[in-house]
Amino acid sequence: MKNEEYSQSKLNRVKRGAVRATYEKEKINNILDAGFLCYVGYIYEGKPITIPMAYARKDNKIYIHGSTGNRMLLSILESKETSITVMHLDGLVLARSGLHHSVNYRSVTLFGGLKKVEKDEEKTEVLRWIVDQMIPNHWDSLRPMYKKELDRTLVVEFTINTGSAKIRDVGVNDEPEDYDLDIWAGIVPIKQVAEYPIADKGKPEKMKIPDHILDYYKGNQ
Amino acid sequence: MKNEEYSQSKLNRVKRGAVRATYEKEKINNILDAGFLCYVGYIYEGKPITIPMAYARKDNKIYIHGSTGNRMLLSILESKETSITVMHLDGLVLARSGLHHSVNYRSVTLFGGLKKVEKDEEKTEVLRWIVDQMIPNHWDSLRPMYKKELDRTLVVEFTINTGSAKIRDVGVNDEPEDYDLDIWAGIVPIKQVAEYPIADKGKPEKMKIPDHILDYYKGNQ
Repeated sequence: MKNEEYSQSKLNRVKRGAVRATYEKEKINNILDAGFLCYVGYIYEGKPITIPMAYARKDNKIYIHGSTGNRMLLSILESKETSITVMHLDGLVLARSGLHHSVNYRSVTLFGGLKKVEKDEEKTEVLRWIVDQMIPNHWDSLRPMYKKELDRTLVVEFTINTGSAKIRDVGVNDEPEDYDLDIWAGIVPIKQVAEYPIADKGKPEKMKIPDHILDYYKGNQ
Repeated sequence: MKNEEYSQSKLNRVKRGAVRATYEKEKINNILDAGFLCYVGYIYEGKPITIPMAYARKDNKIYIHGSTGNRMLLSILESKETSITVMHLDGLVLARSGLHHSVNYRSVTLFGGLKKVEKDEEKTEVLRWIVDQMIPNHWDSLRPMYKKELDRTLVVEFTINTGSAKIRDVGVNDEPEDYDLDIWAGIVPIKQVAEYPIADKGKPEKMKIPDHILDYYKGNQ
């Protein structure tokens, strides 16, 4: 899979800042695997609306879910028109001029096909992936899903047909003549961190926090 | 302005999790003012695409900008069809069951009208707001914009006509019978932090980091 790329078309070709674009599946998957929140686009009464959602990636599929009455999920299943965007903010790029201000980031936009996941066993497996994408190895510590819970959950499989990523991970790029100015310039790195887990009332207050949750906390400092 | 609300219609009324919805302008503005990155929706060849962008809010306006050739900005100026979404992730909600897993967050979706900002003085003022929304009091430390830079910058004003916010900021909500289970449950708070500023090569390496940048760093721990 190394260096394998998504095909480019008018739909996914990056025009602005093309130098930062990549179509490599491995790089795109790395960005997808670094998060669990995506932005799903849909069209409602002619307007494009963006909904934040939890997701899981498996191979070339993205899974999202919601209530069986979820307006957005029902709409994209019917229209087949959607795209999925994921972005991680990595830093503020403070240049000497306003024009060259930017951010460091990793973002992905995906286009693909949609279908409903129907079978209970498959839905359960997808829900495991979604929970484990949020916090690794977590699903096995939970009580099993009830049939009635599965029945009111809509699970949607999005197959990535094509996509692109944009990555900016470099320093300040000012106009050559501006480097002589007495203006501070540089990067303020930004990251998302976890704070120490807060136990729910009742039994958890007296329990040891599970290792996989402490691992997540320590891995996100 | 206290308790003043955006009107509700089919377009902006929150159906899923309506208990967490608000239409209060003050709450919506607080969420908008806590960030500087928004997700702008547009329609390209029938598909809804979401583009992350820096923004500034002033009163009931959102300002975004890009190159004069930016496909998305040109498209929404022409079609007048867009929406803007902002989300802050505040925590993982780890319940005893998969179904009740959630996140704590503050999100806003806005609908409104669009126009191009034409005059150089107004464009300059908007670019100041956008830079200062990213890092307060920063613009005045930069060299002024050149006319030729303004000429290649497209500045778009989005007037909020209506919108909604959703906020989840509570603990775990499990099924009543699940509280007896020996399963750890709780919240893992999540936040975005800044790391220590890294000076660009050359003069900044020998300069004192400006107070407003250190203030930003300290204020984002």
